[in-house]
Amino acid sequence: MKLENYIANVPNFPKEGIQFKDITTLLQNKDAFKECIDRLCNFGKEVGANVVMGPDARGFIFGSAVAYALNTSFVPVRKPGKLPRDTISCEYALEYGTNTLEINKDAFKKGDKVLIVDDLMATGGTIVASINLAEKLGAEVVGVASVIELTELKGTEKIGNIPFLSLVKYDI
Amino acid sequence: MKLENYIANVPNFPKEGIQFKDITTLLQNKDAFKECIDRLCNFGKEVGANVVMGPDARGFIFGSAVAYALNTSFVPVRKPGKLPRDTISCEYALEYGTNTLEINKDAFKKGDKVLIVDDLMATGGTIVASINLAEKLGAEVVGVASVIELTELKGTEKIGNIPFLSLVKYDI
Repeated sequence: MKLENYIANVPNFPKEGIQFKDITTLLQNKDAFKECIDRLCNFGKEVGANVVMGPDARGFIFGSAVAYALNTSFVPVRKPGKLPRDTISCEYALEYGTNTLEINKDAFKKGDKVLIVDDLMATGGTIVASINLAEKLGAEVVGVASVIELTELKGTEKIGNIPFLSLVKYDI
Repeated sequence: MKLENYIANVPNFPKEGIQFKDITTLLQNKDAFKECIDRLCNFGKEVGANVVMGPDARGFIFGSAVAYALNTSFVPVRKPGKLPRDTISCEYALEYGTNTLEINKDAFKKGDKVLIVDDLMATGGTIVASINLAEKLGAEVVGVASVIELTELKGTEKIGNIPFLSLVKYDI
């Protein structure tokens, strides 16, 4: 199954010149959604993950289904102020300004091996911040997986030797 | 398994006087997470759902895993401006002001039977808006399921005869 056939290209969203890749068309097809989760899950098995981490909000959609399929726990990476208990945070640079992400201080147990799942690997900001958060708490990130990769933005160069999988690549 | 043992109570969050029910403790336990999704999934089978709908953002976590487990498609219900293609929207009242939710215009096929999954049934605003959105597009909502129900807020009175399941009830 060619998953790229289930991803819509939306020109000039959210602003002029951007070719937005819309994964809701994939979610709306049960076979494409299943294939997508199964492939992410197989990668998680290969790298030996026992926890899945997914960033707010589209990372929740893919990450939690992969966690269920792998029978692991799920750690949501959230925007500031959403997690009510003790958290740690990581700030990262955007084109203009910065963003902050948070996870629970008790998100991991000693020896946890983490798979990070998101919809998109672009410049890598969210992914790198998620890696930092997991490592700050002593967990090992054993894999990073995204549904889509925008190869020209070279996000994968920022994740070092961590095994990486993307299901659909675009060079625009 | 008593799922309530995996839900943290956080006093005075997000404001004084609120007893916030935190589901991240449940997500962080793989057995509790699996039990939770399996029970929501069994309800989805009982009501004959072929599509799962989940509201932004915690509804994504439970909804997409249930969709995967049921082998259905998943329709994300999003805050305004997040969906890049043609959408329909529904406004609903909050304590102060209003909120708006959107779904894709092409979210459903004729005859679709929808299970709405969210983390929380409180006053029912989000759930009722989600029902309205699905029905506007001609889909039938055959079930509503939430992990937590705050029974004193009587949200279930707003969903008429639609079958409803909650996994953990609080009367505070």
